[in-house]
Amino acid sequence: MDVNMILFDDFETLDVFGPVEIFGTMPNIYKLKYYSLNGGIIGNRHSVKIQTEQIDENISGDILLIPGGQGTRREINNKSLIDKITALSEKSEFCLTVCTGSALLAKTGLLKNRKATTNKNAFDWVKSIDTEVNWVAKARWVTDGKYYTSSGVSAGMDMTLGFIEDRHGRECAERCAGCIEYIWNSDKEKDLFAK
Amino acid sequence: MDVNMILFDDFETLDVFGPVEIFGTMPNIYKLKYYSLNGGIIGNRHSVKIQTEQIDENISGDILLIPGGQGTRREINNKSLIDKITALSEKSEFCLTVCTGSALLAKTGLLKNRKATTNKNAFDWVKSIDTEVNWVAKARWVTDGKYYTSSGVSAGMDMTLGFIEDRHGRECAERCAGCIEYIWNSDKEKDLFAK
Repeated sequence: MDVNMILFDDFETLDVFGPVEIFGTMPNIYKLKYYSLNGGIIGNRHSVKIQTEQIDENISGDILLIPGGQGTRREINNKSLIDKITALSEKSEFCLTVCTGSALLAKTGLLKNRKATTNKNAFDWVKSIDTEVNWVAKARWVTDGKYYTSSGVSAGMDMTLGFIEDRHGRECAERCAGCIEYIWNSDKEKDLFAK
Repeated sequence: MDVNMILFDDFETLDVFGPVEIFGTMPNIYKLKYYSLNGGIIGNRHSVKIQTEQIDENISGDILLIPGGQGTRREINNKSLIDKITALSEKSEFCLTVCTGSALLAKTGLLKNRKATTNKNAFDWVKSIDTEVNWVAKARWVTDGKYYTSSGVSAGMDMTLGFIEDRHGRECAERCAGCIEYIWNSDKEKDLFAK
């Protein structure tokens, strides 16, 4: 399965590369791909400059991953990007968001009447994007059907391991965490950062 | 202070971007820079393609960070890179390694008679690079003077927070972890992955 990451300037570094590291422990199953609206180099405030391909109709409908970061405050008003995210979310088998990536997904309207969460420091802003989403104020991550949404930054790693558990079982998820000496916070309802 | 990361093909993604995310919470103090032997795009098995600058004599002597990854098995025999790492390590105020990055640092000879650690799955190989290093078999991370060496992949984040604690105090390190909703494994002697 392809894991299609949607990047934009000022994405949050670990929102992308935390899940990448987890999916990367299963290279025979998950293939990592980096896309942006126009392709080319995408940068952020950590001076990361990463090469991406342009989003086009050939992207598989496997797994979509939308990171957060300061850039979401600008991209929420980028109709071209939101239209692409809408089409990709509709056709993808699974949609995962990290941190304020859930604001971009909420903007598509696809989260209406579904449970979702986000970074607890940005909760009010994300909530304001679509008040018809059942925003969960206390959760490390939330699943609702094909949608997985996580709390801030590091929670994306825990969510991705939760996704692996749901698809491949607990033992497999624990093995993935062990490969990278990661101490998995595996209880999705335990949220030390909830207000 | 500059945080100078030394990249090479097949570096481990999170070894770099975990510490980047932590240092990135203090943008007024830490400036993130990405270097490689010849500059240009560096890639790895997670399909990451990141832009780097060429290592030259103008790099500051602030903080050096050496990641691990499969690429270290090749780079350990790359005399040009090891010579650059030797010179940079000597002039840097602090040298941090993640995972098998400690093998590259050990190859310089600068760790002789010092305490250090590495990924527990690669322990025997890293130990063989220089048997005169006091390799610590059970530690999340180890500090010895200006040298900070961590266990596998994810341990680099815990070590970087330990580094922040040593320089700016406990409260600051906890605030950095909180910013990115990271649950810091702050006891450097507690190692769940030791054999």
